Amino acid sequence: MPANKPPVFLGLDLGGTDLKYGLVSPNGRILISKKSWAQTKEGQKGLVVQLCEAAGELFSIASQRKLRVARIGIGSPGAVNFGTGKVFGNCPNIPGWVGVNLKKSLGPLGVPVYADNDANCLALAELLFGTAKNCRSVLCVTIGTGIGGGLILEGKVYRGSSFSAGEIGHTTVVFNGKKCACGNRGCLEKYASVSALLEAARERLKAEKESGLKRFLENGKVSVRGIVHAARRKEGWAVELIGEQAVILAAGLASAINLLNPEKVILGGGFIDAYPPFLKLVEKEIQRRAVPAALLKLKIVKAGLGNEAGLVGAAFLGNK
Amino acid sequence: MPANKPPVFLGLDLGGTDLKYGLVSPNGRILISKKSWAQTKEGQKGLVVQLCEAAGELFSIASQRKLRVARIGIGSPGAVNFGTGKVFGNCPNIPGWVGVNLKKSLGPLGVPVYADNDANCLALAELLFGTAKNCRSVLCVTIGTGIGGGLILEGKVYRGSSFSAGEIGHTTVVFNGKKCACGNRGCLEKYASVSALLEAARERLKAEKESGLKRFLENGKVSVRGIVHAARRKEGWAVELIGEQAVILAAGLASAINLLNPEKVILGGGFIDAYPPFLKLVEKEIQRRAVPAALLKLKIVKAGLGNEAGLVGAAFLGNK
Repeated sequence: MPANKPPVFLGLDLGGTDLKYGLVSPNGRILISKKSWAQTKEGQKGLVVQLCEAAGELFSIASQRKLRVARIGIGSPGAVNFGTGKVFGNCPNIPGWVGVNLKKSLGPLGVPVYADNDANCLALAELLFGTAKNCRSVLCVTIGTGIGGGLILEGKVYRGSSFSAGEIGHTTVVFNGKKCACGNRGCLEKYASVSALLEAARERLKAEKESGLKRFLENGKVSVRGIVHAARRKEGWAVELIGEQAVILAAGLASAINLLNPEKVILGGGFIDAYPPFLKLVEKEIQRRAVPAALLKLKIVKAGLGNEAGLVGAAFLGNK
Repeated sequence: MPANKPPVFLGLDLGGTDLKYGLVSPNGRILISKKSWAQTKEGQKGLVVQLCEAAGELFSIASQRKLRVARIGIGSPGAVNFGTGKVFGNCPNIPGWVGVNLKKSLGPLGVPVYADNDANCLALAELLFGTAKNCRSVLCVTIGTGIGGGLILEGKVYRGSSFSAGEIGHTTVVFNGKKCACGNRGCLEKYASVSALLEAARERLKAEKESGLKRFLENGKVSVRGIVHAARRKEGWAVELIGEQAVILAAGLASAINLLNPEKVILGGGFIDAYPPFLKLVEKEIQRRAVPAALLKLKIVKAGLGNEAGLVGAAFLGNK
């Protein structure tokens, strides 16, 4: 392809459920955005084929529009070596994924390939185009099935000594508490993730057969939507469950704030968007728990970019 | 003083108990080192007078030796604004100290003055001359009356957005556990500091009147020396107490390791020196608790510099 065509960046954001992919302009505007189910059960090979096909589809689109794909970026769950592009650990949700080399897998497409952990991609997108713009020190936290984190320190994505920094979901908040998949006990994500909220609601449903919770089930099951709906209608049990989750999340975040003294904590994920009062609850509790000197410059804010932040961050991995 | 005399750096290391002060050569060698009781009960003015007198004494010595004091550095407990030199918070052990401006107080001596938190001075000394030399990311932790911390990130002392980073002693390890002076509950230093160890021993003494612990009292009181002595002699209660402390310390450190993925954790303080097996206990438990990907490059080591590290770090604040 002639180099004088306008460049465009290709982003692939692989999750446990979806693969989001698209083309992003050099100023961060999403030109094309697509989504498909991630073929996580097809094994490493099947999933690599899916990534290559998605990239191929975007190359065709770029070609039709007379754009030049200047580079590819991939955000993946797990610990990813940003240098080599290899996924080397911490990826329980995609069986067989550890060991894949993402740079090599997408290499045949003939443009530079970058790969990083998905939470780092989110942090990078927030740094370049979102609420972390012009910030020096930011803790980005995503509340979902688990709790993920990405760090911006000294104005750059901070990856740590072995590309594993940001694992705030595995902060011990309850000493020798609930067993976590990571092997430790009492991890934050066992108490303050969306999965933990659902589990707490299920336990409550079991304990109180005639509970008001029953009116908010979806197909007989506890759901985040049901809990949020009930909390909005000021149902005591829902307000209480969410309140407990906010308090323990704040305890974990306060520990990280005391250690890092960041200027911003950015909270993201579907639940944060679905129930805005949650952010205020967490903020109030952080004010109570963190060391006062660590709060002087701190702002606690919602993620500024939507669902496609991971894709945008991936597309810009080659930048910083 | 003529500028052609060889330069020397003046360090003042203020603690809750001692003031250590001395002269350090540009290659980090301590030329003069002195110690006196810190006049913490004399109020802000009295303590400032003591700092000025100590500095004056060192200026005289330098002059006699035909050396030129090129700068002064002060390490102080509490949150210290590295820019302005003001102590602005988090200093419960020295009443009236918050509000003092250390740069201004020592300014009349006519050389550049730098001031920082004492844990940051320790981290800087380790970075320049100790076990953190040539490291990019290090967590320095001091186990004493409390638990202090200093961070080295991207090869530099990391101070955070409001000069408060490194407060690992206030990591929540026991959700809603023991009340801490910081206002929060369940802080690491309530469980794993030397004070916590002594308190645990006192509680055990109370609970078991005829306990073997009695043989190890000093003037009828529980002491660190007594506990260490008993542990060395394999007394069950002492081994158990120290073991419990190691486990909970490791839980707190593992949280920080998961977040920062440092290449080194440096543990310092009198207790670490007095009972070397403690470090191994902590290390073993960190291996069990931290996320595997965060352990790939991690080394857990004893502080490389002795009692005068704080003084040396203070003397080099002007460097980095």
